[in-house]
Amino acid sequence: MKLIKGGVISPKGFMASGIYSGVKRKRKDLSLIYCKGGTTTVGMFTTNKVKAAPVLVNEETLNKNNNIKALVINSGVANACTGKKGYEDAKEMTKITGQSLNIKSNEVLVASTGVIGEFLPMDKIEEGIKKLSKELGNSIDHGKWAAEGIMTTDTFIKEMAVEINIGGVPIKIGAMAKGSGMIHPNMATMLSFVTTDINMDKELLNKALKESVEDSYNMISVDGDTSTNDMVILMASGQGKNDLINNEDEDYKKFKDALHLINTTLAKKIAKDGEGATKLIEVQVKGAISKDDGKKICKSILMSNLVKTAIYGEDPNWGRIIAAAGYSKGNFNPHKVDLSLSNSEEEIELMKDGTPCIFHEKTAKKIMESDLIIISIDLKEGNNHVKGWGCDFSHDYVKINASYRS
Amino acid sequence: MKLIKGGVISPKGFMASGIYSGVKRKRKDLSLIYCKGGTTTVGMFTTNKVKAAPVLVNEETLNKNNNIKALVINSGVANACTGKKGYEDAKEMTKITGQSLNIKSNEVLVASTGVIGEFLPMDKIEEGIKKLSKELGNSIDHGKWAAEGIMTTDTFIKEMAVEINIGGVPIKIGAMAKGSGMIHPNMATMLSFVTTDINMDKELLNKALKESVEDSYNMISVDGDTSTNDMVILMASGQGKNDLINNEDEDYKKFKDALHLINTTLAKKIAKDGEGATKLIEVQVKGAISKDDGKKICKSILMSNLVKTAIYGEDPNWGRIIAAAGYSKGNFNPHKVDLSLSNSEEEIELMKDGTPCIFHEKTAKKIMESDLIIISIDLKEGNNHVKGWGCDFSHDYVKINASYRS
Repeated sequence: MKLIKGGVISPKGFMASGIYSGVKRKRKDLSLIYCKGGTTTVGMFTTNKVKAAPVLVNEETLNKNNNIKALVINSGVANACTGKKGYEDAKEMTKITGQSLNIKSNEVLVASTGVIGEFLPMDKIEEGIKKLSKELGNSIDHGKWAAEGIMTTDTFIKEMAVEINIGGVPIKIGAMAKGSGMIHPNMATMLSFVTTDINMDKELLNKALKESVEDSYNMISVDGDTSTNDMVILMASGQGKNDLINNEDEDYKKFKDALHLINTTLAKKIAKDGEGATKLIEVQVKGAISKDDGKKICKSILMSNLVKTAIYGEDPNWGRIIAAAGYSKGNFNPHKVDLSLSNSEEEIELMKDGTPCIFHEKTAKKIMESDLIIISIDLKEGNNHVKGWGCDFSHDYVKINASYRS
Repeated sequence: MKLIKGGVISPKGFMASGIYSGVKRKRKDLSLIYCKGGTTTVGMFTTNKVKAAPVLVNEETLNKNNNIKALVINSGVANACTGKKGYEDAKEMTKITGQSLNIKSNEVLVASTGVIGEFLPMDKIEEGIKKLSKELGNSIDHGKWAAEGIMTTDTFIKEMAVEINIGGVPIKIGAMAKGSGMIHPNMATMLSFVTTDINMDKELLNKALKESVEDSYNMISVDGDTSTNDMVILMASGQGKNDLINNEDEDYKKFKDALHLINTTLAKKIAKDGEGATKLIEVQVKGAISKDDGKKICKSILMSNLVKTAIYGEDPNWGRIIAAAGYSKGNFNPHKVDLSLSNSEEEIELMKDGTPCIFHEKTAKKIMESDLIIISIDLKEGNNHVKGWGCDFSHDYVKINASYRS
């Protein structure tokens, strides 16, 4: 597997772009991915009971048709909690995109992100889609523009591409994602769009995506709020022309590993770019009785506002970590736990067999000053290890979110 | 029922005081409640798997002996995650208190609040308890000093007393509590100590306490973090000399109502005084299928960092409220929901039957500027109504918690 420059435009058959259409102030706010030859497409969506209109529309579309040719995304307005009109607006976006590209509206998926409860400015969206469909291309810049158009409070572009070798044929996977706030994916994620030119059976694509999402996007948390608009879409053009993969052989595993690297890397980027974040936090839970117990403990630590503010303040207040593990619903025995804190260079032991250790405050301080903080907790109960990612909680989180609408 | 001046010293038979012993810098940090004649005492404790030493010691004590005569509390150090030594220190506190008051150590309960993972300065504690046991009294000031001694980042004293009439006999209930951070009680609460001179059967006292706690302390959240030290203790001296209450008659109900008023009022005070809080938030969930569904939705809204920061920023970003209801595990149909926002004077409708309403931004702004914000959500599914309380999320929460240890 090798990392290559690019993003969603890297796999064969895909074009993309992003423009400013006027939904949002002063930033690109409309993106399009297009594959003329069609794709096999699978997706995962938010488990929030309140589903945004584009989520509802895509679920319907994918139930009937997996040959998707285009995906249109706007930022600025989430088109969530917008009732019947919102649903019709999302449908209209697929229709306008279909007409502009001369394809059917049920070959188009749609996504939105931004403020909840406001209606889309459909005149601007219409004009924007028409313009955008004429500006598609497959240069690295085109991919970047598309990745820019889906950003909200994100501070950097999140895209990535890798190349793998499948039976002598080079196969590419590209992706773009956005995160920042209302980040606590559950069974799906923020917006993440993955393209590939692999030739693979739909059920296997679906399986690879589901399994990877569980351990990547679903293991990050910025603020514990699961969005109404979360979605991850995987589109496979088949234009890499490898022999069709239709069982879980070595090639399937190779693809799955590459896909998982992409998803994990983007998930970490989303965590690191959480609203107001200054540090990436990785929580490793080792020795859990079950994976589920490990995940509960991992997420509880990642979500604790007290842990997050302590890390922002560079204060190794580890009691809060143990308290957060304790109020999670995950099983463990507090008297057996080992706890340590590390960055990429140094490590200190904070607890051994449930009892506090004496540690060098200086080394602790050095670790806390890093921009990657690794919290490792060994439950010594079983053989399940899990990892998750989050970020610290700063003054800027409050600043950003106290006036998001204005 | 009438409100009276005072706190834990108001019911007959109780003395108290609070002093500075040196655990904490520059503030009272050690309190004692004493009832020479003995009491019938019941308690509820944190459900966090990681239980602080005083919680473990009290659970053991109350399993064997309900005739409690004294309760000693320190602030500054939580004596949590302190292993065997911490357990022995908590036992030692009951022993020293027992010796100082000439009672048995198993007639003493103990509580701690403060930093997790540090050991108590036992020499200072010992000296403090000896001094404190000579300074007990039952004046209003003595009650206030005791309430001061249990504060951590609390900005005001939380105490209260009421008087009720039981069969012609005046019966009093007094209480003191502390909250501020790591506030998300579960089956218990922060530190809350309630005294009464009622003469009542132990099982009934226990029942009244449990039922009241479920709808008061267990319905508040400051930051979603359930502490290792939560406890609520109810001590009844019986010295009011009413005829023993041993069934759920009118007198029992009268007492329970008064107790619930005390618990609810203190719970709201704790929510209002949440770290960095500028506003009290009340969430009313109406028409839930079950009480449990209502509570899940209520707590999810109260705990949402995005809702809390929006309210701090006085931004009626109601989409976040609906999103938080949606990712709770509570059942409802998003297409039926009514949502409104009010203060004590005005109300605006934000959603009707799941569709956004057009509302006056000016009225919304006026409501958002209040220091009490009421969020009311009608699910229109059943007959269960629940209420809960929390606070907004400000820059100061981050400031306070980024450097709590130092």
